[in-house]
Amino acid sequence: MLQSFRAKELPKVEEAMLTFIEEHTSNQSLAESMAYSVKAGGKRIRPLIVLTTAASFSNSIDVNTYHVAAALEMIHTYSLIHDDLPAMDDDDLRRGKPTNHKVFGEALAILAGDGLLTGAFQLVSETSLESDKQVLLVQLLAKAAGSEGMVAGQAGDMAAEKQQVSLEELMAIHRAKTGALLTYAFVAGGILANQTDYVIEQLQKLGEHIGLAFQIRDDLLDVVGTTEELGKNVGQDAKQEKSTYPALLGVSGAKEALQKELDQATQVIEELKEAEDFDSGLFQELIRLFAL
Amino acid sequence: MLQSFRAKELPKVEEAMLTFIEEHTSNQSLAESMAYSVKAGGKRIRPLIVLTTAASFSNSIDVNTYHVAAALEMIHTYSLIHDDLPAMDDDDLRRGKPTNHKVFGEALAILAGDGLLTGAFQLVSETSLESDKQVLLVQLLAKAAGSEGMVAGQAGDMAAEKQQVSLEELMAIHRAKTGALLTYAFVAGGILANQTDYVIEQLQKLGEHIGLAFQIRDDLLDVVGTTEELGKNVGQDAKQEKSTYPALLGVSGAKEALQKELDQATQVIEELKEAEDFDSGLFQELIRLFAL
Repeated sequence: MLQSFRAKELPKVEEAMLTFIEEHTSNQSLAESMAYSVKAGGKRIRPLIVLTTAASFSNSIDVNTYHVAAALEMIHTYSLIHDDLPAMDDDDLRRGKPTNHKVFGEALAILAGDGLLTGAFQLVSETSLESDKQVLLVQLLAKAAGSEGMVAGQAGDMAAEKQQVSLEELMAIHRAKTGALLTYAFVAGGILANQTDYVIEQLQKLGEHIGLAFQIRDDLLDVVGTTEELGKNVGQDAKQEKSTYPALLGVSGAKEALQKELDQATQVIEELKEAEDFDSGLFQELIRLFAL
Repeated sequence: MLQSFRAKELPKVEEAMLTFIEEHTSNQSLAESMAYSVKAGGKRIRPLIVLTTAASFSNSIDVNTYHVAAALEMIHTYSLIHDDLPAMDDDDLRRGKPTNHKVFGEALAILAGDGLLTGAFQLVSETSLESDKQVLLVQLLAKAAGSEGMVAGQAGDMAAEKQQVSLEELMAIHRAKTGALLTYAFVAGGILANQTDYVIEQLQKLGEHIGLAFQIRDDLLDVVGTTEELGKNVGQDAKQEKSTYPALLGVSGAKEALQKELDQATQVIEELKEAEDFDSGLFQELIRLFAL
């Protein structure tokens, strides 16, 4: 079910991103650089969560849903472009392709990131949603993506590379670095589906568990995966002496921690079944994407 | 009058920016890097325009006005941090102080820019303005700052460094690079003061003339100014063989072009006198800031 949902719905998010770039970029090289990273693909997990959440409640996805999902993926894409820069993680390969700065140069890569980040807010503010909802979606997106969310997490992650950090510190970094945006995906889906504060709170919890699961899994794959499978170089974390879950907990300890987060996510979904018009089918499949 | 207005009002914009960083940044080094560039000062011309415009119509500036002005200055500040990076203009000195990446390193400078950019949208969306107005202010800010505005202008500017461009192309680049954000300052002031579409249109025109005047003056100062006066190295444009107004028009031709833009700005202000409750006093002084 998720398979066909994804195949049917994600191309519309893709289209929303590329249409935005085409219509709202007045410099050709900049447009090419932005579109290159958007087209590089990836799992599109964040927009998939927005769409899945909206569909699980109301089964009514419209153009605004695609646009909010597209905005979120544009923010994720910008963060990858900036993270890959020589001054940051210095990655040459992303999703099996040369990173943005390898193709377009550092300057244009920085600007493409800036353009995608700014464009995300333009996209949300240009939807036909009620103004109250637009303001809330902009506000929560900025909180999740900015200096109390993803950007702070990235700064913390960089600092952590230079020293050993505790499990608690590692979790705090990841809550900000990847968790905040994944949580936003669930919450935004709930807002788009007109859900109550109680449901939004549950979605927030769900997002937090999935956010940690995502990071633990990512760390594990860097140890047990292959470059071919992942489309990026593996073993990078160990090479850079990064603090990771496998490094702190061992591989089997990290696997247990992952399972614990997934179990808790499943429990939240059980509670969501109390909500009106909620169909848990897509969510149950979605959770499995975060298992090893 | 403008002198005392500025002395009274700008510190509140300064405070709004620093309070935002303090309250909404969850990584200490990131907060320091963001605050460093905000505190580096500068002329604060964009927030001054927002406040002057709002005050010229309604003479009622409130906390929301300061926050929108602060958001705009945060965007301007982020753009300077990113523009100064080695991959871009590679500047060591800004406003008489070492540039952000010289103090905090490139990675943190990139993130500080990202944080200020994202924070600007958070600040606008957290005002207590009517939702419709917030959405409009977010939308226009994103358009002015993003890939059809400032970011595109910066990409165009970089490309222009490598070749001779015509006066027309140069003007198009500057309209995007500096004009869009300066125009937003006037328009946002008008929106905050609840002005009619006609008045907003006039403010848009005023912004466009002032935007070009600003850039012509900036280019001229790089030729006729001193490092001490400007707090940045002069003669950089010629060194980098940049296309500038003095390079294309000669110094006296550029001075004439500047005067023409200022005359047209004065004419728009004359027309604005038709608007209700409009006091042109501050505007007339403001225009003089853009003369040599």
